[in-house]
Amino acid sequence: MRTGFAVFLTHLKKTDRPEIPRKTIYRLSIYLRCLHRLKSNALRTVSSEALAKAAGVKSTQLRKDLTYFGQFGTRGLGYDVEQLSAMIAGVLGTNSFQPVVLVGVGNLGTALLSYRGFEQEGFEIVAAFDAEAKNCQNSRIKQPVLPMGKMPEFIREHHVKLAILSVPATAAQEVANTLVGCGVAGLLNFAPIVLSVPEDVMVNNVNLAIELENLSYFIQD
Amino acid sequence: MRTGFAVFLTHLKKTDRPEIPRKTIYRLSIYLRCLHRLKSNALRTVSSEALAKAAGVKSTQLRKDLTYFGQFGTRGLGYDVEQLSAMIAGVLGTNSFQPVVLVGVGNLGTALLSYRGFEQEGFEIVAAFDAEAKNCQNSRIKQPVLPMGKMPEFIREHHVKLAILSVPATAAQEVANTLVGCGVAGLLNFAPIVLSVPEDVMVNNVNLAIELENLSYFIQD
Repeated sequence: MRTGFAVFLTHLKKTDRPEIPRKTIYRLSIYLRCLHRLKSNALRTVSSEALAKAAGVKSTQLRKDLTYFGQFGTRGLGYDVEQLSAMIAGVLGTNSFQPVVLVGVGNLGTALLSYRGFEQEGFEIVAAFDAEAKNCQNSRIKQPVLPMGKMPEFIREHHVKLAILSVPATAAQEVANTLVGCGVAGLLNFAPIVLSVPEDVMVNNVNLAIELENLSYFIQD
Repeated sequence: MRTGFAVFLTHLKKTDRPEIPRKTIYRLSIYLRCLHRLKSNALRTVSSEALAKAAGVKSTQLRKDLTYFGQFGTRGLGYDVEQLSAMIAGVLGTNSFQPVVLVGVGNLGTALLSYRGFEQEGFEIVAAFDAEAKNCQNSRIKQPVLPMGKMPEFIREHHVKLAILSVPATAAQEVANTLVGCGVAGLLNFAPIVLSVPEDVMVNNVNLAIELENLSYFIQD
């Protein structure tokens, strides 16, 4: 029943769902990883205190985050590890295979293509695109690297909704426009610019230099 | 005078500084990038509306963020591009060279070592360390890759305060302990675990799979 509620939530249109803080969604990913570790250690239940500690948050925060998705846990027994994992995976939409394309096969793009972390989490980069696709062949890259002209057809044919953008800043907006035009709704953007996209498209920006710069502020003494 | 105030702030100990929201510090990095673009286009002043738009924030947010560091801008004229850049770089501590070490030269580590984005922003990865340093030689890597045993001495000798952690999750906590023990105060962590560190050490976590998972939530329809 509880799991059912979560699955139901994921079938609502985004606009019909209750407004859930962005940070809660991030923390769900962290809880899920902790639960996977517990499962691989053959643990069946976990207290909210123990799960919160593993995730590096306060237990009040954990309980508040889960409240958005229904009632979980039994007083004195804690959470059922299997059930809570299934609920969170359902909410995040990672209980089914998610195809992803990558655009821009430079240094960073090549690394991302050979990065094992995505596959482990249920994402598969199914193809990469580059303006100079012919020069991108590399024994470390298993995915096909296709010319940009093939992108629209590929995305539509494979119903791709997620794309990783590792193109230079100067090319990023144009590529983003093409992707969005083909139906991509989520962009993981590594280009150091602010992308303009329609309201129903989500952009997560990863700027590694900004992360270092942010640390730089905090290490001053 | 205004710039002077900012420089003064950066010489205060962290604990003596006013509490500035983490997100404000991130946005300063974005403002700085926008200002650099304006400078390279030979613009000398910019209105708060134009700067806010370029950074993708509301102008009230921009003005509020800058208020933490003094009074900037002249009514009708806007901000002096040069002066505001210098102030922000001073606050962020990026107006001087910052040496960084990288630990863990796998796929991701190799990509980060050859990533140009860091150098452009005033950070230089001066050395890398790996448990199997001998196997990490690669024509794309310019930096020396040293065995882990050499890390403590190197960090102390070069007064390194920032480190990038691209080791597997199983090794991350032990490596973090060593780094912190040698005086590193800021960690950019790519390992998918929550690190335990002393309160005066700052950790920024970058988990690329979590970023994709987060997008996955928002693209459901």
